[in-house]
Order: sequence, then structure tokens, then C-alpha cells
Amino acid sequence: MRAEIISVGTELLLGDVVDTNASYIAQSLALLGIDLFRKTVVGDNRERIARVFKEALERANLIIITGGLGPTEDDITKEAVCEVMGEELELNEEVFEKIKKRLGYPKRGTKEGMIKQALVPLSAKILPNPVGTAPGIILEKEDKTVILLPGVPQEMRRMVKEGVVPYLRTKKGRAESIKSKVLKVVGMGESQVEKAILDLLEEQSNPTIALLAQKGEVHIRITAKFKERRLLEERIREVEERIRARLGDYIYGVDEDTLEGKVASLLREKNLTVSVAESCTGGLLSHRLTNIPGSSNYYYAGIVSYSNEAKSHFLGVLPQVIQERGAVSPEVAEGMAKGAREAANTDLGVGITGIAGPTGGTPEKPVGLIYIALSTSDGEICQKFLFPGGREEVKWKASQAALDLLRQYLQRDRR
Amino acid sequence: MRAEIISVGTELLLGDVVDTNASYIAQSLALLGIDLFRKTVVGDNRERIARVFKEALERANLIIITGGLGPTEDDITKEAVCEVMGEELELNEEVFEKIKKRLGYPKRGTKEGMIKQALVPLSAKILPNPVGTAPGIILEKEDKTVILLPGVPQEMRRMVKEGVVPYLRTKKGRAESIKSKVLKVVGMGESQVEKAILDLLEEQSNPTIALLAQKGEVHIRITAKFKERRLLEERIREVEERIRARLGDYIYGVDEDTLEGKVASLLREKNLTVSVAESCTGGLLSHRLTNIPGSSNYYYAGIVSYSNEAKSHFLGVLPQVIQERGAVSPEVAEGMAKGAREAANTDLGVGITGIAGPTGGTPEKPVGLIYIALSTSDGEICQKFLFPGGREEVKWKASQAALDLLRQYLQRDRR
Repeated sequence: MRAEIISVGTELLLGDVVDTNASYIAQSLALLGIDLFRKTVVGDNRERIARVFKEALERANLIIITGGLGPTEDDITKEAVCEVMGEELELNEEVFEKIKKRLGYPKRGTKEGMIKQALVPLSAKILPNPVGTAPGIILEKEDKTVILLPGVPQEMRRMVKEGVVPYLRTKKGRAESIKSKVLKVVGMGESQVEKAILDLLEEQSNPTIALLAQKGEVHIRITAKFKERRLLEERIREVEERIRARLGDYIYGVDEDTLEGKVASLLREKNLTVSVAESCTGGLLSHRLTNIPGSSNYYYAGIVSYSNEAKSHFLGVLPQVIQERGAVSPEVAEGMAKGAREAANTDLGVGITGIAGPTGGTPEKPVGLIYIALSTSDGEICQKFLFPGGREEVKWKASQAALDLLRQYLQRDRR
Repeated sequence: MRAEIISVGTELLLGDVVDTNASYIAQSLALLGIDLFRKTVVGDNRERIARVFKEALERANLIIITGGLGPTEDDITKEAVCEVMGEELELNEEVFEKIKKRLGYPKRGTKEGMIKQALVPLSAKILPNPVGTAPGIILEKEDKTVILLPGVPQEMRRMVKEGVVPYLRTKKGRAESIKSKVLKVVGMGESQVEKAILDLLEEQSNPTIALLAQKGEVHIRITAKFKERRLLEERIREVEERIRARLGDYIYGVDEDTLEGKVASLLREKNLTVSVAESCTGGLLSHRLTNIPGSSNYYYAGIVSYSNEAKSHFLGVLPQVIQERGAVSPEVAEGMAKGAREAANTDLGVGITGIAGPTGGTPEKPVGLIYIALSTSDGEICQKFLFPGGREEVKWKASQAALDLLRQYLQRDRR
């Protein structure tokens, strides 16, 4: 199958909205092993939509179109597509009743709008929309398949996942399948990862291995393409094992895992609690730890000790230590970690102090210098970092390093 | 001018990367008053790039291409474009020296890569790249203008802003200019804003008025299109005044302003300091306040009091009050705000307590219920909210409401 995606919407041409729909569909097609050759964005103009669609129809045999299925006058995707394909639109009673019910007509919705959305090409298959009113439409003509989806991202995603992907999987039949697995690496830069697995990267063919640099971490995507599902799993596992043998503990998780989620599950598993004392990260570490549902089970308290007084008052760091060593020093980071642990009565305490910038740096203590300490009943350890980047980037990288320090400790802890 | 944008990169077709470049360029074109008719994404394939480019050249007279100007073998945009336009590539010594210097060759960079990036069509204008190695290229032939830009977003953005926009502005000459101004509204939903300015929305033509719902706020964009710059400013100001007369203090800022930035400048202006006690927002409010450079001047401390013990230990909220009223209650929010203000010795204290979900809700205290208190030397005030949405959305909206409470207090404060 040769696929193209067309996104319809003047707002996309004005740059008001980023076309995340096309990326989502592209990912889904990649996982099905369907090659995507082009993505096009066009405005809400019947003639131009028809032209773009006609051109795509000449090149590709699978065309997915999103947007322009709404109830208002500038929604004209169906009309343009039917014109090119020589199809007639007809009111689908079943769809009409569903829309009416969903909207709670006459309290909401207009009759004209509902009729417009319930118009469907005679020969179409209907794709139900579980979270909105516009149904999806599948048209098949000769060797061409055309799929129309609404442009509202949450509707489009549900319909791709529950309708389009199963449909395309069946249609493809016993052709090749694609499967991907992402290994997530923290504590190494992209070039270090590349160096460590260079020979694997160079000899790759199937599965392929791709490196993706992300905010404060590196993702390694292994993608295999085989007819037999058994081979898919097997070959990915082989490559994964070879990569793991090189990178070991630097791999913190796979696929949908997040670093804060990994730390959360380790804390839960070991039945340990944590508190946090942050200076330069300004609450970001606490924010990330509490993004995990149920975090109140292991996260008790955080202190954002931005002023020196706060470091002393809430965390018991001696003013003398701050004065002698400076607020950005390993001694203060350790004092903060210990102070948080003791004050909040948790098993672990984390302390972060540093200079997020853009001002406040000196030759001895430049912007990006960060000390991160971990306090346990066995005492304190501290790590030093120097992160490049702007204020928000430095904050993020420091929170990432602190989460990683926690993770490493928890993974080694044998209790 | 009729414009099209072409984004080159197989990663865009795999859905690994969202095409934010095209949106950025689209916005810049919209502000110049240049109509964009199509955006196309194509992979790193010479033949397909050439085909897409050739088609675009037949329809449009301004074509902007991003991506594929890098030093590696799969970067072939220049080659494909030159093939279609009948241009020759030649080594540009000046560009070559710049790249060499930038990379610090021979420490970094390869000779082949540097030569590849320094190849430029003979008749091209060079657009300097202040933050990377690949130069931008402008080709003019008959009535067609073709602009090639690197795909690295930060390089592309700088070059659009500093090179492409001034170039296109001159080229357009005395044609119509477009100017936009965005008014940022907090504390009202999109439909409330719409209702308040419905007549203005209905009678709009030039300037136009557009509503954009954002995370926890609503943006109103006023866009005018006139030949005379004087009229641009004047008409936008007229519409702005009419909208301000309706929405008043709900408008917190314009254009690039952020709510945390507004609060920061009010604190600085009034020479006041703040501390924060957060429960359900888990540090997000502190994180946002400390994203502003120089925040240590007015932000002293934050307490993320996730456990009841932390509320008592750090903030002095009486255990008895927590037990009688519940941790999610106006009394506890006020106690937290007061406790933070007193413990950190600041002018203002903010307290937030609530249920971020997805679990922990009851019929009396459902998920999304949030109390936000402000403590000053005059005493405490508390507001109650019920926010829909998932955990991270509720956290965000609560932080937004807390910032807005601070803003309102600071704007009314007459000291």
C-alpha cells in the first residue's frame, strides 16, 4: 500500500494550530508497515481540497483525510471528495439519530448542522465516532481506499485506534507486520549512546535501530518488519538484549515508561517514602513526582528553599555552612537532603542546589552548575553536574538527574 | 504572492517528529500578509523531493523549503532543487570558512560534511545561520522565489525572523501589511468570552477578531490588514479598547506575556515578596513562579505539603483543623497560606489544597475540587473551584487560578 495523508483546515495554513493529527496517523501507519509518501495541508476551500485529493489519488492507493467534517458551512471535505470520486451524499438515518441523541437535541445542536454531519456517500462504510458527532467514512473504489476522519484530535485518535487500524490490518492480510520497541536511556548523551552501540547501528537492517534525542534522555527505537509475528518478537528481543548488554542500567524503561513513573514504581515496590528539597529547580522535581496518580503514598513533602533563610528555617541548614561554602555547594545540597528527610520523616531525602541562570553565575560557579544530594539513614551522597542551556532547560535536566539518582539508588538497594 | 511550504524529512513521515517548522513559517507569512496555499511533507528521497518541488513551482511563486541541508548523505534538498531549477552547486569559500570556525575543525566536523554544507547554487543569495552550520539559500528566477532553510527548529526560527521576514517585507514593497495583537484572558471560559463580545465578533471584518482557547486561558487575536501602517495601529487600538471595555481586568496581558510573568512584574513593581504552600498542585505553582529569571528577588519559599503531617510541621496547620474540616477545606487552605507567609517571612502567602484525581474523590468532595487561599497582613481570603479534566489538567488549572488570585490582589493593592 502507498499512503498519503491530507489535513484540511485553514487554521493549519495560518500556523495557529500545529498538525499533530498527521503525525499520529503517520505513526499508526508506520506500525502497520504501510509506507507513507506524502503529507499535504490544504485550507477549507472546496476547489483546492478537490485538487489536492485528485492528485493524491493518482499517486497513492490509500488516502487518509482529516478535518472538514464539522456541522458548519466551511466544512466541505465530504463534498469535495465525493465530487472527485463521483459519489452522491445521502442522509443516513442511523447516523442522524446518533448525532441527535449525542447532542441532546433540541437543547443543543441545530437541525441543519445535524443533517450536514449525517450526510454520507451511498457506498461508504461508516466508522463510528465514540466521542463526537462526525462519523468517519471509508470509501473503496477499484484499488483505492479513501478514509475520512474528523479533525478534532481526540475524536480522530480514538477512531484511528479503534476503527482505522483494525480495518487496515485486515485489509493488508498476511503481509508484513511492523513492531517497534523503544528503550529509554538516561544519564548518557546521544553521542555517547551512539558510540556505545556504533557497530549495532552500522550493521542494522531488520530490525532497524534509530536514536532519538529527547529532553534530558535518549530513546533507542528498534523496529522489525516480518510476516511472522513470532519473528517480530524474537528479533526485537535479540537486538534489545545486545543493546542492554552495552548500556545496562542506563536504560531506565521502555515504550510508554517515564522516569518519574519508574521512580514511583520502585518506591512503591520497596515501600519507601521520599521528600524533596529544591532550590534552582523551583518545585519542578516535586511537580514531576506528583504527576503520578497515587503519589501521596510515597511522596510526603517538598521544600522549595529559594532563599538562604528558607534553607535554614525549613531544612536546618546552618547559616554558617551557607556562608562559608556558598548556597551552591555539595555541603548545602547534602544539608538540604538530610533536612528534608528528617523534617518530613521519610526514608529518603533529595536536595538540589544550583544556578539555573541566565544570571547569577560566576567564573567559579557558572550558570548550569548543580549539586544533587541523596540522604538515607546511611548518610548522604552528592553528585555535581554542569548543564548547558537556558533556564528552563537547566531546570529540566537537573530534575532529570535527581530522578535518576533516586532510580539508581532504588535499583541497587537490596532491602 | 502565492506561497507554499515544503518540509523535507523521513522522520516527519514516520510521525516521530511533529512538523512545528511549517506552523512557525505559516505564522510568519500570515503576519506579512502573504497567502499560504499548501504545505507538503516529503521524505529524504531525491526524486520525490524534486517532484514535490516541481509541482509547487507550477502553482506558487514563493516556495519555502525546510530540512535536508545537513552534512550527511541523506541530506539532498539542495541537489533536488538545483536539478529542477537547472542550477549548479559550487563551493562557497566564505561559507566554508565560517562552518570550519563554528565547528572548531579539526576537533569536530568532517571535511566531506563541511564541503557538502558549503555548496551553494551559483546565483543564490546566502542567508547567514547565526546558530548552526547550514546557510539558508534564496534563489530568484523569473517571478519565482525559492528559499531553503535548515530543518533544526532553533536555526530555522532565527533565520526566518532575522533573514526571511525582512527579505520578504522588502520584496512585497508597498503592498498591504498585516499586524496582529493578542489579548490574553484568564478567569473566563471561551464561551463566556464569546458571549461578552458576540456583537464585535459578528460585525468584524478588518480588523478580524479570533478566539483561541488555550490551557487555562483564552486568547483574543485582533488582526488588521492595511497599506498604511498608521491605520494598522489605529484600528487595532480601537478594537482593543472596545474589548477591554467589556472584559476589563480579565485581560491579564498581551502578545508574549505570561500569567506568571505578569505576577512577577507586579511583585517587583510593588516590592512585595511571596511564599507558596501547595498540596494538590504538587510544586507546579512554585515551578511556574521560578521559571521567571530573577524570581529569587520576590519568591522566597514553597512548601509542597502533600501529607497532613507536612501541613502541620512546616506550616503550623493544626491537626485538629485538618481532622475536623478535612485536608481539602477552606480552613486548611487559609492555614497553609498563613503558615507559608509567616514561616518564610514574606508579604504574601498562597495556599492550595484540593483533589487532583483520578482517585480520592467523594460525592461531597469530588475530583477537581480546589480551595485557593491568599494570606496578607490583613488576613486571609479563600476561593473555591471545581475543575474538570485529568490529573495534569486539574493541576495546571489550579496553578492558573492561584496566579490569577495573586494578580488580582496585586492589581487592586494601592500601596
